[in-house]
Amino acid sequence: MSSNNGLQVQYEPNEMGSIRINQQLKQFYKNICTKETLKKKFPISKWLPKYSLSDLQCDVISGLTVGLTVIPQGLAYAKIAGLPPQYGLYSSFMGCFVYCFLGTSKDITLGPTAIMSLMTGTFAISPIPNDATYAIILTLMCGVVQLVMGLLNLGILVNFISYPVINAFTSAAAITIAFGQVKHIFGLKNIPRDFLPMVYDTFANLGQTKVWDMVLGFASLVALYLIKKLRSIKWQDEDEPKSTSQKVARKFLWLFGTGANAVVVISAAGIAASLISMNIKDKITITGHLKQGLPPLQVPAFSIHTRNITQSTGEIFSKIGAGFFIVPLLGLVETIAIGKAFARQNSYKIDPTQELIAIGVANIISCFISSYPVTGSFSRTAVNSQSGVRSPASGIVTGALILLALQVLTPLFYYVPQAALGAVIISAVLQMIDWKILKILWNVDKIDLVPLIITFISSLVIGIEYGIMVGIGLSLLMLLYPLARPKLKYINQGNILVVQPNQGMNFPSAEFISETIVQKATEGGSNRSVIFDCCHIYNIDYSAILGLKELVIDLEKNKLQVALCHVQPTVLEVIERAEIQNLSTYTTLDIALQELPVYNVQGSRQCEEDESKPLLRKF
Amino acid sequence: MSSNNGLQVQYEPNEMGSIRINQQLKQFYKNICTKETLKKKFPISKWLPKYSLSDLQCDVISGLTVGLTVIPQGLAYAKIAGLPPQYGLYSSFMGCFVYCFLGTSKDITLGPTAIMSLMTGTFAISPIPNDATYAIILTLMCGVVQLVMGLLNLGILVNFISYPVINAFTSAAAITIAFGQVKHIFGLKNIPRDFLPMVYDTFANLGQTKVWDMVLGFASLVALYLIKKLRSIKWQDEDEPKSTSQKVARKFLWLFGTGANAVVVISAAGIAASLISMNIKDKITITGHLKQGLPPLQVPAFSIHTRNITQSTGEIFSKIGAGFFIVPLLGLVETIAIGKAFARQNSYKIDPTQELIAIGVANIISCFISSYPVTGSFSRTAVNSQSGVRSPASGIVTGALILLALQVLTPLFYYVPQAALGAVIISAVLQMIDWKILKILWNVDKIDLVPLIITFISSLVIGIEYGIMVGIGLSLLMLLYPLARPKLKYINQGNILVVQPNQGMNFPSAEFISETIVQKATEGGSNRSVIFDCCHIYNIDYSAILGLKELVIDLEKNKLQVALCHVQPTVLEVIERAEIQNLSTYTTLDIALQELPVYNVQGSRQCEEDESKPLLRKF
Repeated sequence: MSSNNGLQVQYEPNEMGSIRINQQLKQFYKNICTKETLKKKFPISKWLPKYSLSDLQCDVISGLTVGLTVIPQGLAYAKIAGLPPQYGLYSSFMGCFVYCFLGTSKDITLGPTAIMSLMTGTFAISPIPNDATYAIILTLMCGVVQLVMGLLNLGILVNFISYPVINAFTSAAAITIAFGQVKHIFGLKNIPRDFLPMVYDTFANLGQTKVWDMVLGFASLVALYLIKKLRSIKWQDEDEPKSTSQKVARKFLWLFGTGANAVVVISAAGIAASLISMNIKDKITITGHLKQGLPPLQVPAFSIHTRNITQSTGEIFSKIGAGFFIVPLLGLVETIAIGKAFARQNSYKIDPTQELIAIGVANIISCFISSYPVTGSFSRTAVNSQSGVRSPASGIVTGALILLALQVLTPLFYYVPQAALGAVIISAVLQMIDWKILKILWNVDKIDLVPLIITFISSLVIGIEYGIMVGIGLSLLMLLYPLARPKLKYINQGNILVVQPNQGMNFPSAEFISETIVQKATEGGSNRSVIFDCCHIYNIDYSAILGLKELVIDLEKNKLQVALCHVQPTVLEVIERAEIQNLSTYTTLDIALQELPVYNVQGSRQCEEDESKPLLRKF
Repeated sequence: MSSNNGLQVQYEPNEMGSIRINQQLKQFYKNICTKETLKKKFPISKWLPKYSLSDLQCDVISGLTVGLTVIPQGLAYAKIAGLPPQYGLYSSFMGCFVYCFLGTSKDITLGPTAIMSLMTGTFAISPIPNDATYAIILTLMCGVVQLVMGLLNLGILVNFISYPVINAFTSAAAITIAFGQVKHIFGLKNIPRDFLPMVYDTFANLGQTKVWDMVLGFASLVALYLIKKLRSIKWQDEDEPKSTSQKVARKFLWLFGTGANAVVVISAAGIAASLISMNIKDKITITGHLKQGLPPLQVPAFSIHTRNITQSTGEIFSKIGAGFFIVPLLGLVETIAIGKAFARQNSYKIDPTQELIAIGVANIISCFISSYPVTGSFSRTAVNSQSGVRSPASGIVTGALILLALQVLTPLFYYVPQAALGAVIISAVLQMIDWKILKILWNVDKIDLVPLIITFISSLVIGIEYGIMVGIGLSLLMLLYPLARPKLKYINQGNILVVQPNQGMNFPSAEFISETIVQKATEGGSNRSVIFDCCHIYNIDYSAILGLKELVIDLEKNKLQVALCHVQPTVLEVIERAEIQNLSTYTTLDIALQELPVYNVQGSRQCEEDESKPLLRKF
């Protein structure tokens, strides 16, 4: 995720500070103006000149196939985002267009996803039903954060979300989403959004099940399962030559399987329409009237003014709060993970920084057409790849199909049963749940089960948005703990105690190190001066300076001395500038032992041969 | 902050996993039941048996002095918290009582502080003016979080807030608070709470200054400055013997200086009362009627129900949001920092874990008497220490004095001018601003200026609550960056590339390491098999396993092999359990070089002698 043309501040022991940064700045400005950089920023300029007619054929087919998948998914996902169905379509086309120009993967297709819909429904719920003000502001800010991260090469942040945390979060989100659709399958009303109350109320209200909804819902689920199976049929005569008709038939079955969502939704809508014509209208829950036509092109509203509710920009921003950070990061994680997976599978490379810029720009532009946040969709990217896509141009076809649907098909969506959309969602998200990881981690690395299980449980119990934060925080703490509590090696040299920490001295560890040394030097009535062996300390910060100062002062109270040895040049420079009184530094341990004015010095041992002793502190 | 009797999960290379944790659990449960533990949890049992009459004398004097300081401070700080003045007094006494039983420092005095008042006013502002529902819920949860952190030994979290971040946050908070009082000094109305709009509106409205407020405000400021000076007078004949009257006179001057707040507030109230009796009532802003008497003892309300506004527990909790984490952590930082400073000065030790429990319990109990969150106060702890306090028993005296004030003095507070309270606050917080740190860091360690300046600016510009989060996040990222981008050493051995990372392979670095190696091994058309030297890798997680798997698969595509050498036993165990196909491990680099089936192997070199090469990646 780091890159060779960005402004990247590194803290290295040997070249701290301004010289390196200046060079990088120069390189950065130089790189901005080259043709190579422009090509890198607009990857379309790389593939468009070589684009052929056969590429176009493949892209049209895959573009249409993806379009067939995204239309029913979009209608359904908008519900998860707490928005009317047309917003799912509004969110589906602009990403495809933008990605065509800026994307570095031929397979990725941007648009609404289950996770992003859930996050939108969690962080950006307007106080007015069916109002998208919050969602659209989230889209804009999500894009801005992603674009800024891309320009500053902050894609590295993705590396700090560990695999078990993503895995547990995804499973918990899938369960939340899937269970959230059970109410649609059974035709229940007024079920809350939070997971635990949702489960409780769903079961408590099962008595009010609408039979026709349930029948249609379960039929859709079964149909989806069976039709999707067609895609993965293994023919026994795979390797034998086949006739054209055989090939066409098999291709058709595959296409039929891939378009399962569309097939089921259309059939269910047909059934619902005939049921309604038979006057059993009230017994089936349908989508109802959708706003027809393309979304308006407009600058987002940054405040809400209605007769009853007025909310300022500040209020809206503070309500979305952590969403401005979590949602762009999740979008980034999804896109990068998908992009890398398909790049590896199809033997090409993606540029994560450029991907970040692409989804950032896609979100920023999308907010002007009332979209909620978009990112790379795993299921549709897979469909795209399997349909033989050759370039991101297929996105243009997908986008065009969606525009056509918005313009022409919206009246038909009136009859789509909610239960069928619920089935589409359930069948899409259930495959996101990964139970196998539990067994794998149990066998391979049990420690990683801790963030996994805690993320999973807290996502379900206290909410998906807090679960991911708890998980990230916990895994970072597990990473940081050893930095805060370094191991100290002790060597007794008569009246002198030699101490050697196994790593750098920074703000999490500085106080711990100095307090531990003072305690060790004065414990059991035997007061010993201290030689602090810095051979493993490559960097030091101001907190460490304060720690050293306290060490010197605390030992002076006991009339003891502190000396440093094996200090790296860069560390020495900082310590010298800090002018700590009564702290002497020596080149080697031997010299330090000879110079410190104490009795019973009996030679020295090498760093590497020291006896290691476990660390015990009182507090 | 870690402790010897708590459940402490450590990830050590040599003793991973369950055995150690089991032992710790046993030790933990064993420790719970000893007399020693009970003594540790109730430190009063240590000092009370030895308590003497002379201790009592000292504690009464210091308790009264602190009480004299906290009463005017409490009235003033409650304004910062957005609450009526009596809440400052409600918050002042219970902490003193609880700390007497549970605290481990003789000097610390708990109660309302400027920072906690600001945080309460930021995170817990009720939609109903003067309503404390939010603040009281914050107190309860703050206590619960602190108590849980104490019981789980999570005080270590404090170590992850670096000195420059705390310093910058404190200065920014002091500036925000001080400038927030300018409106009271000038008698201005309707000034917003956020810093930038507040500064703008304050200047824009200067024309509406109330002259009497301004005169009283500036007079109070000058008086406070001069009277406080009395405390620090250096007498030239310090060492000479003095007569009793001289001693008494000097002691009286010191006491007068220490009680500056009370002196100024009482005088200002007297002046205001006489002005009002002279019928210039409208020209001076006074505190007005306070609710008299002790606060009601009641279970906190967890929701708001009025005619216009209804808010559920969930809504209130989600509005306070990050406050439930930031406020307890800041309270902890304040108490520990103060406790350690005075413990060092007076040569005793505090137990940070027990301090955490003490402030946790203090907050939990305080919420039943309508208190907002309390913590250790630096200014009053200093007064306590200088007054010669001997034990936490002085808190009882302080608390009793406040109860007396609530019962008897509240009618007198009616006349206290707002301008005088504003002056009390300004004179208290201005000394919290630390400019010197800028020069020190510039000289000693310029890198630390980055989190300092960014925390300071973002605290003022985007809000104090976000500033601290930005600062903590940034300083952690600076700490984590080297973990995510380890340095790789390369040695060319003919057709074999030997790679040696300088530290462990964990989730932030796993993908980076494997991608970098693949690129290096296949760059420039020269395909080389890879020996991955693990001599500096002491721990590994599941992400690293995935990284190794990807490394093997990606190199296999180029018909290249991967071998590991110098694998630590614990790391080897994890790798073997993961059963990565086609990954061979060898004891030493020499053996690996001999066994890998490639040409041109020409012996090997030692780990430590490898040529180091800077790392360049494409992305």
